[in-house]
Amino acid sequence: MSVTIKDIAKQCGVGVSTVSRALNNHPDINPQTREMIMKVIRETGFVPNDSARYLKRSESNSLALLVKGISNPFFSEMIRIMEMETEKRGYSVILRHVSANEDEVAVAYSLVRERRLKGIIFLGGNFTHDGEALKKLGVPYIFSTIGNVNENTNDDDLIANIAVDDVEASREAVDYLIQQGHRNIAIVTDALHVPSVGQLRFRGYRKALEAHGIPYREELVYEVNDGTEHYTRPNGYKAARSLLSAHPEITAFFCISDVLAFGVCRAVVERGKRIPLDVSVVGFDGIEEGDYYIPKLTTVRQPVEQMAEETVNLLFDMIQKKAKPKNIIMPAQLLIKESSGTGYRG
Amino acid sequence: MSVTIKDIAKQCGVGVSTVSRALNNHPDINPQTREMIMKVIRETGFVPNDSARYLKRSESNSLALLVKGISNPFFSEMIRIMEMETEKRGYSVILRHVSANEDEVAVAYSLVRERRLKGIIFLGGNFTHDGEALKKLGVPYIFSTIGNVNENTNDDDLIANIAVDDVEASREAVDYLIQQGHRNIAIVTDALHVPSVGQLRFRGYRKALEAHGIPYREELVYEVNDGTEHYTRPNGYKAARSLLSAHPEITAFFCISDVLAFGVCRAVVERGKRIPLDVSVVGFDGIEEGDYYIPKLTTVRQPVEQMAEETVNLLFDMIQKKAKPKNIIMPAQLLIKESSGTGYRG
Repeated sequence: MSVTIKDIAKQCGVGVSTVSRALNNHPDINPQTREMIMKVIRETGFVPNDSARYLKRSESNSLALLVKGISNPFFSEMIRIMEMETEKRGYSVILRHVSANEDEVAVAYSLVRERRLKGIIFLGGNFTHDGEALKKLGVPYIFSTIGNVNENTNDDDLIANIAVDDVEASREAVDYLIQQGHRNIAIVTDALHVPSVGQLRFRGYRKALEAHGIPYREELVYEVNDGTEHYTRPNGYKAARSLLSAHPEITAFFCISDVLAFGVCRAVVERGKRIPLDVSVVGFDGIEEGDYYIPKLTTVRQPVEQMAEETVNLLFDMIQKKAKPKNIIMPAQLLIKESSGTGYRG
Repeated sequence: MSVTIKDIAKQCGVGVSTVSRALNNHPDINPQTREMIMKVIRETGFVPNDSARYLKRSESNSLALLVKGISNPFFSEMIRIMEMETEKRGYSVILRHVSANEDEVAVAYSLVRERRLKGIIFLGGNFTHDGEALKKLGVPYIFSTIGNVNENTNDDDLIANIAVDDVEASREAVDYLIQQGHRNIAIVTDALHVPSVGQLRFRGYRKALEAHGIPYREELVYEVNDGTEHYTRPNGYKAARSLLSAHPEITAFFCISDVLAFGVCRAVVERGKRIPLDVSVVGFDGIEEGDYYIPKLTTVRQPVEQMAEETVNLLFDMIQKKAKPKNIIMPAQLLIKESSGTGYRG
């Protein structure tokens, strides 16, 4: 007994023509209604007899999602939400990783030409780009979670961008460590010559030290420079091993991502030090993994769901010419959990 | 000073026409050569003046990657590798999540019609499917890491499939716990009415108990049934809280995935029990996160890189009609780390 289009219409409480519109991704259908109908279709396993009906759909209803750091779980969650939000609108996501040494705009350029994309999302990567190369893309694009792309852009030329205030959020996190009594605070960050969030979060670190009159010591800075991806647990582990053996006086680590922080924690414990009794560790991102870590990770939470949804929303508004590029800065939040506390005062 | 196609050719040590063939994804080019050239192109940020050249490329060089459990980090790693392997061959990956209550074959069917795909990879999901629905897909497809899809298939009708021997690997893991002295061993698994790896790994658990004459107790089985994804840390956490409060005699947990195991560990520790002194925890998958957990997680490792690569290899061989569907079972490996040990003997 196979399911028919009439069964679907009945179950959804709509007419057959509405189901047909949903299947054909017709513009005259409410997105929520389409989503509800497609959900029922997928759950019942309904397969239309007339497969030709699908071929009417435009084949170019695709967005590209270019991810620098695709194995970072912070991005996994964003990819999941972005894919769902895009699918709701009847579009597909073409996923493409970008290696640490690739230029993401060049990658995007070739994808646009190959696939006739409707839009591009850049997830992770650099916050400065060649304006001419961006213009050549020829389709709407948006940057997400890679810092303030518009730092040097005037209001008329804004680039679409969703981010937190990386400098301020990091300043706040390091300020908290200082208030807990820490003075020898190391930072594990991305290579500083790269214009990435690592640079911005490092600025926040320095600002906090300055505000408290704590001298900046270059030897407490570890710049990750290994592998096709920089934000990884092994890189955090290596960083903490190296920092702790050269500077056993370190009592706190500020890590510019949670995955780096997990690697740091493991190295701290293997050195026979206790977290947070001997050493405090603070991450950045606020991924779920931190809440199930032992100890739970203190971190700066980025509002991942809202950022992912707003990225897709704004991009679709731009595709439909309902909005111009905007620079949206969302609030980050310091979450004090179990991996940080009062520091050793010597 | 912008980069020209001649610069690229020079840097690669090939002729301009070879670079052009790489750009156009011409069939007469060695895939390694193409990959090397594209790498240089991306690294230099080279943008061809004649963008029309790209339009010659077929627009249908896409695979769909359907993932049931897209937020499971085990799949993140596979997605990363599969995307890279696919890109090497000049194809794009269309990524699509499948919810726990969706039929992945129905989702695939609509994608094939919408996007004119060349092939489909099913990652996660059920190991039994309606053969008629599969035939209707009309393009090559392969199942990856979802158990023995071919359990009831005769040799001539094999479905392309890459998996480990889930039953045997689980039997071995639980056998190890029994040899450590554990008798009250709980299992955290997927809903057992669903034909997923949860069912297979549960079979291995029962086999190990039987072999040692340990009575099977239904009350030590926790079936995860919550959320659009089942393999999550919160589900593991809930499972262990519930099991430990009803059955404080439990000294070991076998979890059918690592993420479930992290949730279990956290609940065990919050109950004031020590891992592994009071309670042992064993996971399944072998993701990197386990090696940076405190304690490091004992787990059954699936050879993720080889499985991902072999999935893409076999699918492309099928697309190019160089191979028929095969059932490939790869070796899994029990890795004894820090989260398991000699059990409490009462």
